[in-house]
Amino acid sequence: MNKTIGIFGGGQLGRMMAQAALPLNIQCTFFEANHNCPSAILGQVFSEHDAQGLEKFIESADVFSLEFENTPLADVDTLLQSKQLYPPRQALATAQNRLLEKALFDQLDIPVAPYRAVDSLSSLQQAVTELGLPIVLKTATGGYDGKGQFVLREQEQIEQAWAELGPAKSLIAESFVKFSREVSIIAVRGQNGEVKSWPLAENHHHHGILSHSIVPAPNSEQLQPVAQDYITRLLNHLNYVGVLTLELFVTEAGLYANEMAPRVHNSGHWSIEGAVCSQFENHIRAVAGLPLGSTEVLRPTVMINIIGRYPDAAQILALNGVHLHMYNKEERPGRKLGHITLMPVNHAELTELCRQLAKILPEPLALTQDMNI
Amino acid sequence: MNKTIGIFGGGQLGRMMAQAALPLNIQCTFFEANHNCPSAILGQVFSEHDAQGLEKFIESADVFSLEFENTPLADVDTLLQSKQLYPPRQALATAQNRLLEKALFDQLDIPVAPYRAVDSLSSLQQAVTELGLPIVLKTATGGYDGKGQFVLREQEQIEQAWAELGPAKSLIAESFVKFSREVSIIAVRGQNGEVKSWPLAENHHHHGILSHSIVPAPNSEQLQPVAQDYITRLLNHLNYVGVLTLELFVTEAGLYANEMAPRVHNSGHWSIEGAVCSQFENHIRAVAGLPLGSTEVLRPTVMINIIGRYPDAAQILALNGVHLHMYNKEERPGRKLGHITLMPVNHAELTELCRQLAKILPEPLALTQDMNI
Repeated sequence: MNKTIGIFGGGQLGRMMAQAALPLNIQCTFFEANHNCPSAILGQVFSEHDAQGLEKFIESADVFSLEFENTPLADVDTLLQSKQLYPPRQALATAQNRLLEKALFDQLDIPVAPYRAVDSLSSLQQAVTELGLPIVLKTATGGYDGKGQFVLREQEQIEQAWAELGPAKSLIAESFVKFSREVSIIAVRGQNGEVKSWPLAENHHHHGILSHSIVPAPNSEQLQPVAQDYITRLLNHLNYVGVLTLELFVTEAGLYANEMAPRVHNSGHWSIEGAVCSQFENHIRAVAGLPLGSTEVLRPTVMINIIGRYPDAAQILALNGVHLHMYNKEERPGRKLGHITLMPVNHAELTELCRQLAKILPEPLALTQDMNI
Repeated sequence: MNKTIGIFGGGQLGRMMAQAALPLNIQCTFFEANHNCPSAILGQVFSEHDAQGLEKFIESADVFSLEFENTPLADVDTLLQSKQLYPPRQALATAQNRLLEKALFDQLDIPVAPYRAVDSLSSLQQAVTELGLPIVLKTATGGYDGKGQFVLREQEQIEQAWAELGPAKSLIAESFVKFSREVSIIAVRGQNGEVKSWPLAENHHHHGILSHSIVPAPNSEQLQPVAQDYITRLLNHLNYVGVLTLELFVTEAGLYANEMAPRVHNSGHWSIEGAVCSQFENHIRAVAGLPLGSTEVLRPTVMINIIGRYPDAAQILALNGVHLHMYNKEERPGRKLGHITLMPVNHAELTELCRQLAKILPEPLALTQDMNI
């Protein structure tokens, strides 16, 4: 092997990174509590529960990255005493704190919905006065899939919201922004500062979980250069190395940044088959100090998540041109277990494939209503 | 995991099979003398040198396949007492014996160069009389990369040829066939009898080793249906399951079969990026009893072998749209260490990429002369 990359986290993102690394003779190791994680088949897993787990993980690789954006900064600081991490610590610290993230967007002139920092009942009342209602109150750190959030619709809920989230001390109050759809842009920056981005993905959610992404996002020709500009500002400002994702709302006033993820992203899984070089391979190339690959699209692609229950693989694979990726995870409601990639030759074939998929998937999610079929 | 496939052999073909199997939640194990083989990173390796190695290998998987065409039939017979092998034993036995192979081609009306079985000095003299000179004398079994062969150009060499190869007892004398180029067709047959084939590859060799393949083979529109017909006859006759390769000579009289390989093939590596579904994924799908994927070509592709010495990965990856596959093998003259896939958008880009590659590759092989650049 040429090089070993140590990855914080060992889920499906690490698994797909390690798959992309293999043909480059790059081996991965993982820091992950669960020794039976999706990445385990591709490299050694070190756990914080093992004696000196972190130290052994740090010894196991030449250079480090992450697939888990809540990687503890304390672990990163231990690592940085002896080894290098890509993306940089600052990107991770910023993405872990909604107030730091918004401040960075402001600093780089990337539009965001109006927001206020909240650290007391009076500052919450002030925010409601200034932003109006409704607003969503969130803890600045932590929180996931709607946890750590309170949607404030009425003045009378202010004290209840504070009672629920106030103990977190650092909160953010955000205006609701009226948007027609959510898109994401994924880009990669190499160690030499070279930046490449993939086309915008249009993302459809169901109960707060990504259901499917369409790439390139329809009617996004005007949005693409704007999104590229925003993410390039972030990448360069952070002296970023690796793949970064920026989620954006499409509003009448243009694109508003929602949040960034300092890692490969579910809305980029399409790139394994749909782009010349995938988000996973380019992330590995960047972290290993190799030149970046082309992000050109081979064919328009639709990526559909498999959530909660596995479909019958044979039924899925019988569909024309379909790719199936399963993550070797146990079934659990709401859990991402795999994804399906469709590369239809035209819209008629896409519609037909989706119609067939809707019959096969145990949880067809938002597929049927969103695709107007 | 859904299923485990046990593979005889653990080289780069097994490695790429196992890579294709992973997203389908299919795990591979390997029977291979070298525990440090290219496949080892993807699954457990059992060796004939270990106590009860074969028995443990047979226990380790649900269904079996091979990547090594000289897999001993005795091992296969042990396996078949309890488990299933795809492709079938007969395909392997036929491919291992040049006389059986030619007889099968004859039986299925697949043209071959004139040949005679030789098992004595007098039958060799008879063959020379009937076929004329030059001929090539080969052992029916074994022999590799020009070993076990004698090119007979003069009557006076007959006794020397017999002295060298006669001890092998079973020989074949083949006429030289005048051909303009070598092509190969790869096809896959599912457990339900479904057959799909990829486009013909045009193969260029250097010192007897595949240097590069161009897909689709230029000017092969007329040859494709003929080759598909021949390989389909073989697949159906053998009740084959999995990927089969047929090497063919393009002659003035049409296509002549050279030999078949009952496995995925070096001339099909392009399909990882160049086809909707690769030879590796379709082989795994067939062996696992899953529906076959589309063999449609995404873009014309050139596959170039890395032989003997590794190039500088960074220089290769800096070329536009290039994919690099390294097999984690030690450098050795004449050894296949990896391959490079080019997906040029047109012939001008192909020429330019090859020009650049010729400067980078330590062993540029037949690249420069064959591509007329």
